[in-house]
Amino acid sequence: MFFERIKTPGIAQVAYILAADGDALVVDPCRDVQRYLTILQNSSLRLRYVVQTHRHEDFEMGGAALRQLTGAEIVAGKHDIFRHADVRLGDGETLQLGTLTLRALHTPGHTPESMCYAIYLAANPELAWGVFTGDALFIGDTGRTDLPAADKAVENAGRLYDALHDKVFPLGDQTLVFPAHGAGSACGGQVADRDDSTIGIERVSNAAATMGREAFVRYKGHEQHARPPYFRVMEQVNLDGGRALDERPVPWLPPQSFRELSQTGVVIDTREAEAFAGGHIASAYSIWLAGLSRYGGWITDPVSLYLVVDEPGQLHEARLALARIGHDNVAGALANGFSAWRAAGQAIETSGTITPAQLNAASGHYTVLDVREAGEFEAGHIPAAQHVFVGELAHWLGEMALDTDTPLAVTCSVGHRSSFGVSILKRHGYSNVSNLLGGMTAWHRLGLPIDRPGT
Amino acid sequence: MFFERIKTPGIAQVAYILAADGDALVVDPCRDVQRYLTILQNSSLRLRYVVQTHRHEDFEMGGAALRQLTGAEIVAGKHDIFRHADVRLGDGETLQLGTLTLRALHTPGHTPESMCYAIYLAANPELAWGVFTGDALFIGDTGRTDLPAADKAVENAGRLYDALHDKVFPLGDQTLVFPAHGAGSACGGQVADRDDSTIGIERVSNAAATMGREAFVRYKGHEQHARPPYFRVMEQVNLDGGRALDERPVPWLPPQSFRELSQTGVVIDTREAEAFAGGHIASAYSIWLAGLSRYGGWITDPVSLYLVVDEPGQLHEARLALARIGHDNVAGALANGFSAWRAAGQAIETSGTITPAQLNAASGHYTVLDVREAGEFEAGHIPAAQHVFVGELAHWLGEMALDTDTPLAVTCSVGHRSSFGVSILKRHGYSNVSNLLGGMTAWHRLGLPIDRPGT
Amino acid sequence: MFFERIKTPGIAQVAYILAADGDALVVDPCRDVQRYLTILQNSSLRLRYVVQTHRHEDFEMGGAALRQLTGAEIVAGKHDIFRHADVRLGDGETLQLGTLTLRALHTPGHTPESMCYAIYLAANPELAWGVFTGDALFIGDTGRTDLPAADKAVENAGRLYDALHDKVFPLGDQTLVFPAHGAGSACGGQVADRDDSTIGIERVSNAAATMGREAFVRYKGHEQHARPPYFRVMEQVNLDGGRALDERPVPWLPPQSFRELSQTGVVIDTREAEAFAGGHIASAYSIWLAGLSRYGGWITDPVSLYLVVDEPGQLHEARLALARIGHDNVAGALANGFSAWRAAGQAIETSGTITPAQLNAASGHYTVLDVREAGEFEAGHIPAAQHVFVGELAHWLGEMALDTDTPLAVTCSVGHRSSFGVSILKRHGYSNVSNLLGGMTAWHRLGLPIDRPGT
Amino acid sequence: MFFERIKTPGIAQVAYILAADGDALVVDPCRDVQRYLTILQNSSLRLRYVVQTHRHEDFEMGGAALRQLTGAEIVAGKHDIFRHADVRLGDGETLQLGTLTLRALHTPGHTPESMCYAIYLAANPELAWGVFTGDALFIGDTGRTDLPAADKAVENAGRLYDALHDKVFPLGDQTLVFPAHGAGSACGGQVADRDDSTIGIERVSNAAATMGREAFVRYKGHEQHARPPYFRVMEQVNLDGGRALDERPVPWLPPQSFRELSQTGVVIDTREAEAFAGGHIASAYSIWLAGLSRYGGWITDPVSLYLVVDEPGQLHEARLALARIGHDNVAGALANGFSAWRAAGQAIETSGTITPAQLNAASGHYTVLDVREAGEFEAGHIPAAQHVFVGELAHWLGEMALDTDTPLAVTCSVGHRSSFGVSILKRHGYSNVSNLLGGMTAWHRLGLPIDRPGT
Repeated sequence: MFFERIKTPGIAQVAYILAADGDALVVDPCRDVQRYLTILQNSSLRLRYVVQTHRHEDFEMGGAALRQLTGAEIVAGKHDIFRHADVRLGDGETLQLGTLTLRALHTPGHTPESMCYAIYLAANPELAWGVFTGDALFIGDTGRTDLPAADKAVENAGRLYDALHDKVFPLGDQTLVFPAHGAGSACGGQVADRDDSTIGIERVSNAAATMGREAFVRYKGHEQHARPPYFRVMEQVNLDGGRALDERPVPWLPPQSFRELSQTGVVIDTREAEAFAGGHIASAYSIWLAGLSRYGGWITDPVSLYLVVDEPGQLHEARLALARIGHDNVAGALANGFSAWRAAGQAIETSGTITPAQLNAASGHYTVLDVREAGEFEAGHIPAAQHVFVGELAHWLGEMALDTDTPLAVTCSVGHRSSFGVSILKRHGYSNVSNLLGGMTAWHRLGLPIDRPGT
Repeated sequence: MFFERIKTPGIAQVAYILAADGDALVVDPCRDVQRYLTILQNSSLRLRYVVQTHRHEDFEMGGAALRQLTGAEIVAGKHDIFRHADVRLGDGETLQLGTLTLRALHTPGHTPESMCYAIYLAANPELAWGVFTGDALFIGDTGRTDLPAADKAVENAGRLYDALHDKVFPLGDQTLVFPAHGAGSACGGQVADRDDSTIGIERVSNAAATMGREAFVRYKGHEQHARPPYFRVMEQVNLDGGRALDERPVPWLPPQSFRELSQTGVVIDTREAEAFAGGHIASAYSIWLAGLSRYGGWITDPVSLYLVVDEPGQLHEARLALARIGHDNVAGALANGFSAWRAAGQAIETSGTITPAQLNAASGHYTVLDVREAGEFEAGHIPAAQHVFVGELAHWLGEMALDTDTPLAVTCSVGHRSSFGVSILKRHGYSNVSNLLGGMTAWHRLGLPIDRPGT
Repeated sequence: MFFERIKTPGIAQVAYILAADGDALVVDPCRDVQRYLTILQNSSLRLRYVVQTHRHEDFEMGGAALRQLTGAEIVAGKHDIFRHADVRLGDGETLQLGTLTLRALHTPGHTPESMCYAIYLAANPELAWGVFTGDALFIGDTGRTDLPAADKAVENAGRLYDALHDKVFPLGDQTLVFPAHGAGSACGGQVADRDDSTIGIERVSNAAATMGREAFVRYKGHEQHARPPYFRVMEQVNLDGGRALDERPVPWLPPQSFRELSQTGVVIDTREAEAFAGGHIASAYSIWLAGLSRYGGWITDPVSLYLVVDEPGQLHEARLALARIGHDNVAGALANGFSAWRAAGQAIETSGTITPAQLNAASGHYTVLDVREAGEFEAGHIPAAQHVFVGELAHWLGEMALDTDTPLAVTCSVGHRSSFGVSILKRHGYSNVSNLLGGMTAWHRLGLPIDRPGT
Repeated sequence: MFFERIKTPGIAQVAYILAADGDALVVDPCRDVQRYLTILQNSSLRLRYVVQTHRHEDFEMGGAALRQLTGAEIVAGKHDIFRHADVRLGDGETLQLGTLTLRALHTPGHTPESMCYAIYLAANPELAWGVFTGDALFIGDTGRTDLPAADKAVENAGRLYDALHDKVFPLGDQTLVFPAHGAGSACGGQVADRDDSTIGIERVSNAAATMGREAFVRYKGHEQHARPPYFRVMEQVNLDGGRALDERPVPWLPPQSFRELSQTGVVIDTREAEAFAGGHIASAYSIWLAGLSRYGGWITDPVSLYLVVDEPGQLHEARLALARIGHDNVAGALANGFSAWRAAGQAIETSGTITPAQLNAASGHYTVLDVREAGEFEAGHIPAAQHVFVGELAHWLGEMALDTDTPLAVTCSVGHRSSFGVSILKRHGYSNVSNLLGGMTAWHRLGLPIDRPGT
């Protein structure tokens, strides 16, 4: 038996390779499939199936690419949405992989078509060894239930609760839990930062198990999650299992070419917040490298993307991070990084940084914008801070009558999203904008004043 | 300035990346272009040109693939054969790459269209820094002149001599020499096993310089080189700059499937000679891994290829080695190697091995087949040995009236090509065949009797 | 939280890195510690503790090396044998690692000092998340109980049963199981070939849970396990946590030097069985690369070791495999492999191979030696085969009055251990020895006659 | 024949491995010798000799470490300083390596003991194939001559000129040149940025060849080179061939521990200039990663070093960069980088950035400090700029009576050294300090006013 987790950072995604007797299946692959193929190749495994738990909305799927390259069959549930699947399993139906048995469990709630797949070893055909839970059950959380329709979130939370209690928890405490996402996913807000769990552990630590149905439905049905616009694109392309990755190299552009070409597109600067503040290209978005998959999806301008990275090796990573959420329009990267821009005498802008102590001392002077998600804001924020999620900041600015000279301090949890916020504000003409370094994490640690609305 | 040699083993090929001011060119790339792109990407270089010295016959070219992926232009000479080039340089014409200048030199002889490209630094525009010599000038040798037409080898040797003396040697002793092949190439038999040389060094050590014209023409014009049948395919596909690499993974097949599927194809066993002798699949060809590019081209059966490798990681290497000579028809590999075949109880054949001492002691008993190239045989061989080049062995057997029970000892230089020979003999029904371990190298070291026809 | 398994092939060993809040511990590291340090370094983790479950006998431990390099403290139980530990935990005592808690469980039976360590997350301080079980509980098996003293195996089996039932199984079905060994270990014969399990899964599939006490004690107390002589060395060096790895490179020796120097030592040929049969150096032991850690420990000649490997890169692996079992006396390797030996005209020996069909057809002609472990032999063997475990073959030959001309066929499961056996027989002067290709696996698949003594 | 260049960035150093017939030598290795051993191991080469051109002053040598690990002999000249060498060659004496011959050439001038070694192939024993030139001859430059004694620079320039003209240039135009340093070395200011050259190319492009003796002596004897204080340490440790590398991992420290421990040491922040400006730890030095080997040598506080890096993987690189110049006192690194510091609410300082356009517009307002080397300053600088080399800035500040409130703009070539300068100024209490982004490179490109003292 062969079993391996393959994690994708940025979208906090986990795919799995399971194999027995030389035959393998991959569960929920991303579209950059070469890494799965390398593992299969190095272990002399032949890919037979790509197993899909549901149509993902937060990343582009790799099923179609794997089928194309290997001839593997796509396995999914019976819901209409899986029209492109080769093998469709109804609730309770099984699939054999060597000596292993997969049993399909229909577990709607996150999405109507969501499936889990319990795994049984030959030696104990009655007792589940593990279960692929997709976005139904995470470690410490469940999938969000607002995706199919925001106004059905409560109803879907009930469905999810029932599916888990009727089909997944009964697999028994001994069952290993293999979800599609880990901590930091856009599909669940409270996912624990560990990779190994069992049904028994979830039964005492997961709200879906420790709460009663009513409480859970209320809690889960009213969670507030951001919904980046690229989700709509994923909904379409994933109907057919995702598109093949564009493997053409992104051209490196010297400063002058970069400046000229990027006029008709959008610059994304992937350096850290302090580097962006110390000097950047006018109109650039600031999205740190590890946040590209999560926040790049909020940029919807249907235009070419031009990247600034710290090291040449990061271009591949940045481009993959964008491709994973379907952004294939990376048209160039700044050759030799920002120091080349600097040395070319190209125009440079700076933005401000401010420490918690400084902001606290000058609190009256600044309008504080807190760009975290609503739930984070509600759990405690700087007194008088205004809340607007960074993904909605551009839209919000259009509706506000804020003076562009207003001294603004932008905050989030540690300073990454606030740098994105600063860059959006500068694009909209706000000139006096500072990033609160360390954000609310530092603010809390320093014991500075907090407003907790609920208390 | 950026300069890097990128060697391809098996075909003993060398490509070059040269760059200045962020702009790069690649000289004579193979079709597995990803490795060139990785270098360019990691050094923030933009590919502007693919420079071709000539239409290669011994490997499939990567120009078209690079143009397709990067938009680079293909640079070549003015000969008709370069109809697909974007930039065509006549003799003496130049191309600028940042501060560097390339000057085209038409140097026919190896092939009619062969070009060299001298490189000049901005600081010394009159003095060549280096020269890309393609297959015109190797280190210690020149390209063979029999390829355009065997009966024009002498004439072409004269053309090559003139081109080198008129255009290449006059670049001056200081000029660095960058040829397209190193030692072990099918395009030249006496290439030295070092990578660095200069015109000055070649002028005292290369036959093209140390011999007079007449002597050189006689020597080079009568060299005997094998001409594997795949050369004809390369001649066609390289007209358009080669085809893109097939990236689909080769399926691993368990023994039973491997046996069944390979019935309609050909098995190539890439293990070492001793391993093949100790146990192998019936009808398999024995071609050691490092020899696949060189000897795989003699297998012309228009069928699927099935591979036996020692380690899973070698499949990629084996498949690339075949793809580089245009063999894209690898249809499967034996999962978990020969030990899986063994453990499955599949039929196994063995063949004999014999040491020089044993053969010498029993010399009357064996018919000795020497499967090296003609020149090697003529320089010294076992008394009474018959010569037939391994690539022509199958054809030769068809014409011979050799009894299939005859005890045969097969030899080459160290035992690789003779293992290929053994496998061909076994395919033709010869049952009593032994590989001379250590071949003529060991025979010589042991001071055993040698026939030298020329002396 | 950070958790990673680090497997060591050959000894089927698993070490673990567990970390929380930047502080890490390593459980049961091998002496080649650089790989653990690399993981820690890349994840910005600081090593605080090396946790030892017991004094291992089958590999040299890395605790002392890690303490020396990092200043980490060694954590173990209170038994006298752990005299070198910095932190000694009694049964039930706990250790804090950031927000995680480790609780020590004294679980004697495999060895008197054996400890397990249950892991608790801050959120559920009463419910174990996982347990490091050392050699007390494997997946599908338990540690052997004959190591402290063969005549106490039954008594120790009882102790182990009690410890598991009193302390480990009560941790609950949800508990993840993290043992020190996987399938193929010398410490347990029936370990399952999967890495993930829980107490709940073991409770229905592990003999220690499914059998009653009496049956288990009888079964486990009478298991027959080989005990390689190097275990005695490990017992000594591991008292102090093992020795640092010798990092000096092994010199590559050309054939003539290799031959001369190895006269005073022992040659180990790590190539596959067929390659060894096809040609090898006189007196060489044949131990395939992946079997070096497992079978190299049977070579006790207190002399230098000289290695033959297929590829230069394998020398590092071969040397590590030997170092892991304490063999630091590798004095040289054959430069450029067996083909260099061949080409140098050095003396070569061959040995026979035979297929199951051939042996079955000529069964009367051969004395069959089955060199597997006793339990494997008893489960079914070739009629009239004699049993002697490969590790005891040399000793056994000394006591036998076997004619060195006797035609011998040697078998094991697939042909690796039998190749080791063939090489031992040849060292003892037996000249007519053949390796049964595919061994009993192939024999079974072909449906050839089997003796099953117990039936 | 085997030949490979192994470059070490930061010190722009080149070591060489040359091998024939399985025997290898390494020329001028650095103390991090594992990379040389890996190359030797992968090519089945045995190290016989470490060849030293001279006692290097700019990096710690690896000869002693290689001798210790492999038993290789150290080869050098006859000067007293090479007392630790095993083989000492006088001028003209030769060493055999397989079929290759090395001929020693005593070439004093850079240092009194400097040797070159010409390489001859067996086929042409009279004609040099290449020459290891150490610091005597670089590509486009020669070694500095002020190291033995600043007041003997002129005299030594004459010696160097004579040695090159008497012994090196006569090797002939065809000779490949293999120097110990490339562009960016502290041992020569005008080294060309290419790796391949020949005597013939140098003869038309190197001042040592194109100038007459008198002109060269004047030019080279009056060059101004910085001499970092660590050179004195190298002079001592290299007498014995350098020390072994400290392989113990550097501990990652969380912000609070980092702050406390680093109080008694020195913090080096390796992030880019903009990041440093946007936020940094008080009193930290700013030295960008690639500049650590070059500028870290100016920090002489005999105290522990604490590092801030962008990515965990950079710690290894940073530590090696310091170890290469003998700084073994790295005592800790900031775990999870500056964003952890930020999030911990630790105190953060910022510094200013200014663009060329801004500075030009406000020129009267700022005192401009140009921290490049004297030669760079003299070739053109901002009008009214004061010059002080960054390495001497701390000393210079002690002698100046500059008001700590003075608005200072610091410049260098592109902004790296000026960031180091900014950090030194801040350590000395200067509060109003800005880094000129893009430095003189940008200033020139924008066509802003320049003072050229010599014109």
